[in-house]
Amino acid sequence: MPNYAYINGTIVPAAKAVIPINDLGLLRGYAVFDYLRTYNGKPLLINHHFERFENSAKSLRIALPLTKKQITETIISLIQKSKIKKDVGIRLLITGGNSTDGISLGKPNFIIIIEDLAEPKEEEIKNGVKLIINKFQRETPLVKTTNYKNAIRHSSEKEEQNAYDILYHFNNNILETTRNNFFIFKKNILLTAKEKVLQGITRKIILQIAKEKFKIEERPVNIDELKDATEAFVTGATKNILPVVQINKLKIGNGKIGKNTKILIKMFRKYIRNCLKIQKNNKTSNE
Amino acid sequence: MPNYAYINGTIVPAAKAVIPINDLGLLRGYAVFDYLRTYNGKPLLINHHFERFENSAKSLRIALPLTKKQITETIISLIQKSKIKKDVGIRLLITGGNSTDGISLGKPNFIIIIEDLAEPKEEEIKNGVKLIINKFQRETPLVKTTNYKNAIRHSSEKEEQNAYDILYHFNNNILETTRNNFFIFKKNILLTAKEKVLQGITRKIILQIAKEKFKIEERPVNIDELKDATEAFVTGATKNILPVVQINKLKIGNGKIGKNTKILIKMFRKYIRNCLKIQKNNKTSNE
Repeated sequence: MPNYAYINGTIVPAAKAVIPINDLGLLRGYAVFDYLRTYNGKPLLINHHFERFENSAKSLRIALPLTKKQITETIISLIQKSKIKKDVGIRLLITGGNSTDGISLGKPNFIIIIEDLAEPKEEEIKNGVKLIINKFQRETPLVKTTNYKNAIRHSSEKEEQNAYDILYHFNNNILETTRNNFFIFKKNILLTAKEKVLQGITRKIILQIAKEKFKIEERPVNIDELKDATEAFVTGATKNILPVVQINKLKIGNGKIGKNTKILIKMFRKYIRNCLKIQKNNKTSNE
Repeated sequence: MPNYAYINGTIVPAAKAVIPINDLGLLRGYAVFDYLRTYNGKPLLINHHFERFENSAKSLRIALPLTKKQITETIISLIQKSKIKKDVGIRLLITGGNSTDGISLGKPNFIIIIEDLAEPKEEEIKNGVKLIINKFQRETPLVKTTNYKNAIRHSSEKEEQNAYDILYHFNNNILETTRNNFFIFKKNILLTAKEKVLQGITRKIILQIAKEKFKIEERPVNIDELKDATEAFVTGATKNILPVVQINKLKIGNGKIGKNTKILIKMFRKYIRNCLKIQKNNKTSNE
């Protein structure tokens, strides 16, 4: 549970943080969010996250009440006040506001929550994880809305099959997992869905750094191509690159973490280290 | 704005009614609702609405904390306490509860809100309304979830085009409007989509009573069939049967309310009057 939260200009103990029941995020699922994490106590890649958050809000015709600078300062205040010693997750959430008639937009409710970071277990990082597949395509994949109904509805199947997450496919194309982007290697070619998936920040960085070493194909990935995958992994803010070694009953590669994935993990860590160095030199929280 | 609301066992003034920010309805859009109305101060068709609400909740693996009897009694208490003189809308809403990690289900938050009834204007009832069309199919049309993002996103287009509501179509089939079911008459044949639409209570009653007078076809309705429609209308708890006289630029029939629609409106009113009589005789609030 988070220690403190920001709501509409006020920082309050998280346990007392509430919103009115006529909020459109609650009544109509009309809300967008973004999620970033700290390294060494400082929020990383905040420029990227702010940009995506602002775009998500715009697509729902919601204007952010704070500038990027104000949001950054608020996040830093929250972290300091929360006195958390380890790294944390930061959830930005904005809704359609309190509605007078249950459907018309009101003044947005803007919330920032500091949360425990749900990093993968050591075992999962070391051995890779299993995914199960589910036919689904998110309504507005480019907009980071709060709609995770399908993910939560199917979470029991995931547990029953001892899987880490659910991989969505639609129209015979592999898309993304419930909360992450998905990549495969076919030998030295790195493939990921180009469209109808969330434009992940980690995904964007991977595509940027991977091109130094690998051929990249950003295009529709047919579900039948999974059997030709020599390696696979998911990417996201909390898990960076997490290797995938099994999808349903299909073993990926030889069922162990592949060498190219290991190379990419190293490259990504180096990228993060560089960001942290730049941050330290600039003495700002932005990368 | 509602006067009083029920939240998890307590009746509170609506202005003070709040939920924690870690509620899954807010964070993940994980919530279902139902909406009924009163006639002469008494909730009508509560059996039907309770059944649908319970099914919606079940499909999200949420168990209702109250029985139908308890919910009915709570609604009556709320109405009495609210001292509203006119008829009202009643919103039942249940969420995935307060989550410890932002994704796992918690103990559900169950809310009942008494709201002003948003009935159509006299002019709209008298002259019929215009719809505009939008390509969209709800994720889980049979489950009354809180996801109305598409409806709210496109509400400005509706206003710009002076339309009453948006009619969804998908795969060349006409489905439903953002909050109502949709019917057309082709002369004396009444048509409505059978699948991929909300199973409306008013829709169900219309299909039941209309068969005395008309041939009914409950089946996929192709978008091209709109031009053969001699009459059209939408149905729902607040508006009962509301005639549609225009869809985009297409005039339906001669642009006036058709005779069969008028007959159905009379039949529906008679049905409601009978329900109210039965209620009065039983001295209960159930039909």
